[in-house]
Amino acid sequence: MTTVTALSAPKASAPFERAELERREVKGDDVRIDIRYAGICHSDIHTVREEWGPANFPLTPGHEIIGTVTEVGPDVTKYAVGDTVGVGCFVNSCGECEACKDGEEQYCSKGVVQTYNSKDYDGTATQGGYSQGIVVREPFVVRVPDGVDLAATTPLLCAGITTYAPLKRYGAGPGQKVGVIGLGGLGHVAVKIAAALGAEVSVLSRTDAKADDGKAFGASAYYATEDDQVFEDLANHFDLIINTVGASVDLDRFFGLLGRGGVMVNVGAPSEKQSFNIFSLIGMRRSYAGSLVGGLAETQEMLDFCAEHGITATVEVIKADQVDDYYDKVVSGDVRYRAVIDTATI
Amino acid sequence: MTTVTALSAPKASAPFERAELERREVKGDDVRIDIRYAGICHSDIHTVREEWGPANFPLTPGHEIIGTVTEVGPDVTKYAVGDTVGVGCFVNSCGECEACKDGEEQYCSKGVVQTYNSKDYDGTATQGGYSQGIVVREPFVVRVPDGVDLAATTPLLCAGITTYAPLKRYGAGPGQKVGVIGLGGLGHVAVKIAAALGAEVSVLSRTDAKADDGKAFGASAYYATEDDQVFEDLANHFDLIINTVGASVDLDRFFGLLGRGGVMVNVGAPSEKQSFNIFSLIGMRRSYAGSLVGGLAETQEMLDFCAEHGITATVEVIKADQVDDYYDKVVSGDVRYRAVIDTATI
Repeated sequence: MTTVTALSAPKASAPFERAELERREVKGDDVRIDIRYAGICHSDIHTVREEWGPANFPLTPGHEIIGTVTEVGPDVTKYAVGDTVGVGCFVNSCGECEACKDGEEQYCSKGVVQTYNSKDYDGTATQGGYSQGIVVREPFVVRVPDGVDLAATTPLLCAGITTYAPLKRYGAGPGQKVGVIGLGGLGHVAVKIAAALGAEVSVLSRTDAKADDGKAFGASAYYATEDDQVFEDLANHFDLIINTVGASVDLDRFFGLLGRGGVMVNVGAPSEKQSFNIFSLIGMRRSYAGSLVGGLAETQEMLDFCAEHGITATVEVIKADQVDDYYDKVVSGDVRYRAVIDTATI
Repeated sequence: MTTVTALSAPKASAPFERAELERREVKGDDVRIDIRYAGICHSDIHTVREEWGPANFPLTPGHEIIGTVTEVGPDVTKYAVGDTVGVGCFVNSCGECEACKDGEEQYCSKGVVQTYNSKDYDGTATQGGYSQGIVVREPFVVRVPDGVDLAATTPLLCAGITTYAPLKRYGAGPGQKVGVIGLGGLGHVAVKIAAALGAEVSVLSRTDAKADDGKAFGASAYYATEDDQVFEDLANHFDLIINTVGASVDLDRFFGLLGRGGVMVNVGAPSEKQSFNIFSLIGMRRSYAGSLVGGLAETQEMLDFCAEHGITATVEVIKADQVDDYYDKVVSGDVRYRAVIDTATI
């Protein structure tokens, strides 16, 4: 075992403490990574605050990780010491089921092993990226393209793939009208990627406070949905809406913005039940879909796409001691637009 | 004007009375049809009972119509006196919007004119098929293939196209596992069509009361969902579920039966809000869609497909005086499987 310093929550909603985490010895296809940046995702907060159910404490969250390879196992072929690599939302899967074979490891039928708050197949509790190091099997490591801003690229490991996957699946591109509900950590990346894919992108945010940013991120239009008129003006307008909001919205109103055959995809995950009138879907054969991150090959594709198009998240790089404060800022929507921990400060 | 005898509801939920309806003189591309059969659809009941909102009384429902052409306007080219034809859920659309041009007139942006309880573009209140005759524009008339059982084919004008359209859209065919929730008027037709398309079809009915029928209709499996074990045994099983039930079901449980990327399509339309946990969709990138009948070209395609495969609804042919009783029987699920009015008895 090797120990690394980490931020650890001793119990639900408690402030983080510095603690020593054990990381396994490198063997087989393991890659040891010296973590440089770890992004804060709203999921981390939902988990630590047990808003999505009981969690395993003490807990180190973090599933947006970039760092440097410091050791590789004998079976590793793709990475060498010194390489800059990333780790996202999961660190193991069975590799044998249909989902794994299709490159959709996140839907592994044995149960994907999440980067934190999960149990690996050997029974070890997984601990995430708010730490100085991690050991991950090679198939679950992706290569960070040369020359990118590492801190600002870090959130792409979750926010990037979470939005890229449904945008690609539902054909975002030239001639398609894409709406993005919420301009937060996920939403601002969705806007950038959808615009780079060639779609005509509109931001659907509650107020106009972020209008300038929305345009700067690549949106051709920005609508403040606190204005009821928006729902009349944009009736049946969109081909695809990516709903990035973690709280519930008035689904019937937003479905009304979808044209014939339009799809709304939730990547935000409100904990309460979602409720709407089925006629909102039937009337224009609309659909309401969910999407969960993306597979490893697609994560690599997304990183390469973002590097090619100069896309990163827009970030605030923070110190370990600021994490508790930033949790509150994330929840209140005050981060512009994603917080990334400089793990040297842990 | 010409008058025809019809069944007419004087007010919400009142028994039907015989009344004279006015039908317009034939002009332009109009086709006058001597109605022979009119199916009873659960929508008729929802409408007459104002379960879907206020209706226009007096009201003659009926949007599953088969009859004989008795007169054609000067611009009619496809039909001649004596032809056997059908009329479905709508009788006019703008013909110019994108939906109409795409052959999806039911989603016409000007607002499709429904066969009853609607206003035609000239302001006339539409009245439906529980009558001895109707005048409909040629584009909204379909040809009934030779040699079919007319009474049993009648329900296909709604129940057939309503299930055929989503089955085709979502790729029901060989290698696909299709579940059908509810074995009623819509469900039994869905089973027959899905099986003819080559899919592996399972019925998901509350009890096993209709198990023999389900198999006879072409299902390879039948499950009584009052048995909780079904939801464990069939977890992640289906590619596509057609939900034909007009009442609410436990959506989270049924979503759990869909595999990765699976779709549930509601063609039944419960009036209360639909509610579920968004994780039920996100966890396997499932989606929940609505679908509304089908366009005219696809309705003709469906009729031809059903004739080719020997598919009709399974019907009880009833007299006009039985309609009120059959409304109750439809609601309580006691009709095997669709009631069709012999309009000669009106």
